[in-house]
Amino acid sequence: MDKQNLQLDAEGNLRHFLTIEGLKRAMLVDLLDTAESFAEVTEREVKKVPLLRGKTIVNLFFESSTRTRTTFELAAKRLSADVVNINVPASAASKGETLLDTLRNLEAMHCDMFVIRHPDSGAAHFIARHAAPHVSIINAGDGRHAHPTQAMLDMFTIRRHKKTFQQLIVAIVGDVLHSRVARSQIHALSTLGVQEIRAIAPRTLLPVEAASALGVHVYHDMREGLRDVDVVIMLRLQYERMQGGMLPSEHEYYRLYGLTEDKLRYARDDVMVMHPGPINRGVEIDSAVADGPRSVILQQVSHGTAVRMAVMSRAMQRSQAVVREPS
Amino acid sequence: MDKQNLQLDAEGNLRHFLTIEGLKRAMLVDLLDTAESFAEVTEREVKKVPLLRGKTIVNLFFESSTRTRTTFELAAKRLSADVVNINVPASAASKGETLLDTLRNLEAMHCDMFVIRHPDSGAAHFIARHAAPHVSIINAGDGRHAHPTQAMLDMFTIRRHKKTFQQLIVAIVGDVLHSRVARSQIHALSTLGVQEIRAIAPRTLLPVEAASALGVHVYHDMREGLRDVDVVIMLRLQYERMQGGMLPSEHEYYRLYGLTEDKLRYARDDVMVMHPGPINRGVEIDSAVADGPRSVILQQVSHGTAVRMAVMSRAMQRSQAVVREPS
Amino acid sequence: MDKQNLQLDAEGNLRHFLTIEGLKRAMLVDLLDTAESFAEVTEREVKKVPLLRGKTIVNLFFESSTRTRTTFELAAKRLSADVVNINVPASAASKGETLLDTLRNLEAMHCDMFVIRHPDSGAAHFIARHAAPHVSIINAGDGRHAHPTQAMLDMFTIRRHKKTFQQLIVAIVGDVLHSRVARSQIHALSTLGVQEIRAIAPRTLLPVEAASALGVHVYHDMREGLRDVDVVIMLRLQYERMQGGMLPSEHEYYRLYGLTEDKLRYARDDVMVMHPGPINRGVEIDSAVADGPRSVILQQVSHGTAVRMAVMSRAMQRSQAVVREPS
Repeated sequence: MDKQNLQLDAEGNLRHFLTIEGLKRAMLVDLLDTAESFAEVTEREVKKVPLLRGKTIVNLFFESSTRTRTTFELAAKRLSADVVNINVPASAASKGETLLDTLRNLEAMHCDMFVIRHPDSGAAHFIARHAAPHVSIINAGDGRHAHPTQAMLDMFTIRRHKKTFQQLIVAIVGDVLHSRVARSQIHALSTLGVQEIRAIAPRTLLPVEAASALGVHVYHDMREGLRDVDVVIMLRLQYERMQGGMLPSEHEYYRLYGLTEDKLRYARDDVMVMHPGPINRGVEIDSAVADGPRSVILQQVSHGTAVRMAVMSRAMQRSQAVVREPS
Repeated sequence: MDKQNLQLDAEGNLRHFLTIEGLKRAMLVDLLDTAESFAEVTEREVKKVPLLRGKTIVNLFFESSTRTRTTFELAAKRLSADVVNINVPASAASKGETLLDTLRNLEAMHCDMFVIRHPDSGAAHFIARHAAPHVSIINAGDGRHAHPTQAMLDMFTIRRHKKTFQQLIVAIVGDVLHSRVARSQIHALSTLGVQEIRAIAPRTLLPVEAASALGVHVYHDMREGLRDVDVVIMLRLQYERMQGGMLPSEHEYYRLYGLTEDKLRYARDDVMVMHPGPINRGVEIDSAVADGPRSVILQQVSHGTAVRMAVMSRAMQRSQAVVREPS
Repeated sequence: MDKQNLQLDAEGNLRHFLTIEGLKRAMLVDLLDTAESFAEVTEREVKKVPLLRGKTIVNLFFESSTRTRTTFELAAKRLSADVVNINVPASAASKGETLLDTLRNLEAMHCDMFVIRHPDSGAAHFIARHAAPHVSIINAGDGRHAHPTQAMLDMFTIRRHKKTFQQLIVAIVGDVLHSRVARSQIHALSTLGVQEIRAIAPRTLLPVEAASALGVHVYHDMREGLRDVDVVIMLRLQYERMQGGMLPSEHEYYRLYGLTEDKLRYARDDVMVMHPGPINRGVEIDSAVADGPRSVILQQVSHGTAVRMAVMSRAMQRSQAVVREPS
């Protein structure tokens, strides 16, 4: 079974959610449509539906992230599932052998779904490949590989504002090459058929030859790259890269690639400003922009719960038919 | 909007619960009455009511306290709310900017109520001032400022035993000047109309001039201060003060201000002995007194859940009219 | 009230679950029968029963164990109880005084059941001896003393495979003398009437005279001890003992006492291989055996939830009559 198909069952329905890569457009659209109905639930007085009552969802985090853990915990609880949080310190998460034993034990406890965050690329696939038939795996971020629920909530936010993806020019700014968020966004944007995807980054972070493999247009100049874009997605600056000498100083980076009102003027008037959060104010984005009228950053967070509810419920309802269209 | 009114909505109903200061007597009485009905719930076989089903309550603790977190978690669960615990290590709780971003993100996740504990005085007010309209903030202790749910459970315990507040003489013993618990107790006792509030402490901890601002009578001698009191509230000794040279040795402190059977003889025969816990046995209170017939320390804990249920449900039901009387 | 009877109420029903020692065969059989009905629940689509709705169960862990905490948390949630997890760091768990104050406070919060793990032998008994009448204590492992729910899930697993205990020869391999798991297993196996219990360990770990007190047959040679056994229970190697010079090297231990296919050949053809987990692969057990056809290690984990549900519900239903037979 290849990497792409691992996340589908024999009928082509979603079983695991590991990566956007290889998923058909119809499935992404179905997830967005399902999320729409849950978005309405999260705005109700009683923000709960009994869909996953009696199911057990484990947040299995090998990398600590209160924020991501909280969004998945809220999504699960609003689906009426029981949630157990397990944080595995990096030191204990040693060998693949141990990882499998952890998986086998939680499976034996009749847990139904594992939300996995792991510092190693491919960890979620590895676990999914060995998971028992009754278990679903959701990738909540694995190394530099993928963060598919983040990408889907971004798509949800774009669709809410732009209605359709077809005519859009989308720019992703920052360390695109090493970002699991960016990789998943590129797959999603491409599958949903945007007109053009751009990556804007310093030459040291994103050599032209590397970008061709991603299927994006590379820009090293911010103003040039932002020209006429409909959506600009800022990535969080990873400070460890700066220390590695691959980036100029924080101040210099902000001057060249920080999103300011001034630079934003090159984009379309109705440009959407996005960021997966948490933001470094004054580093990759100016507060005036982050809190400004074009920013949809908090809407992204808000949609995160609905999108994760959609992914979780779809993966658990795989016996039911998913509406599909040719792609 | 001034500090006092921040916690009320336009109709004068409770929206946030930040401090006792500025709340009218009728509102405190309403909270105590509401807590009475919940006290009955917590003693039932099934200790749950569906009042806050589908609501999300976040325990957002910037200062670690298993005990306080547990009481709020229990109160929320017994109201059928979903609870998420978030502990923010002191190191991560740096700038106000970050604090606001944390707030905005949790609001965007459609959380309804935040129970905040924070080492900085005024933190809960700061957050409440910036909270979205749909969100309620409960102060679970901020610096040296206020701990209003603790004060309300103390009032609940006093009322259960003494029926009325009017004739009471209440003495608070310990570092009254720097205690958020004492400040909230003094506001509550004063609003509920006790006859006299006394503060008993070493001169180094409580200069006479400082006490006048609190509106209490100061005593530096324990026996004198305890004479004829109906209620004595012991504060927990903060060891860091002792190291700062503001206090004599632990042994000396106990000799002078530790509550013993001997000193307690100066109070009225039916005196109630209270302590917010956790107690330092043999430091500020003798075990014989803490476990003795006049101690209501465990009753205070017991009432804590009911009082917190009352505060939480009142703050969430602010669309409904609150019974009010002129004050 | 002696140690054995502390866990029964006046009618002889289970109130606390502290040790297998002193429990009658009929009570163990009742727990196994009750667990059978819950095993069916954990395999359903909706893995929940409303038996303990509105009850509060506290996981009070003075020794960290994500695995054990998770199984109890799952069991409690599947019984619809509210669960609060409290981890008390070893440093804070100092004096018995403090422990009692912790207990008194949680009781005052109207918690109904405490699941206790503690590094000191006898801690669960100590707490049970002082618990309020409405509270049940479950021992989740105390020092080297007992781990009775582990023993019961082992008995459940044996009964599922062997139907009856009467004809069985069971060998326990490892540091039997210092293992709380082994002690509880020996009491359970003996009460349920197996034919023979063997302990296999190096002479340094298990002197013959010490074993007689346990009422087991001692073997120092693995092949000899495994001859004709129906069940072999491997214990987890405690590395700290190895450092203490009581054990040869890891390699040498494995050569002598590690369970391999080769040594297993001395047992009966239908031998069951058990281990309380987590396993040290290649230390006390070969992967080929742990994952092989005779291993029931994951079934043990699986039965853990059902057995803990049975213990919890029995201890909470002590007003109801428990079916008993003479023993």
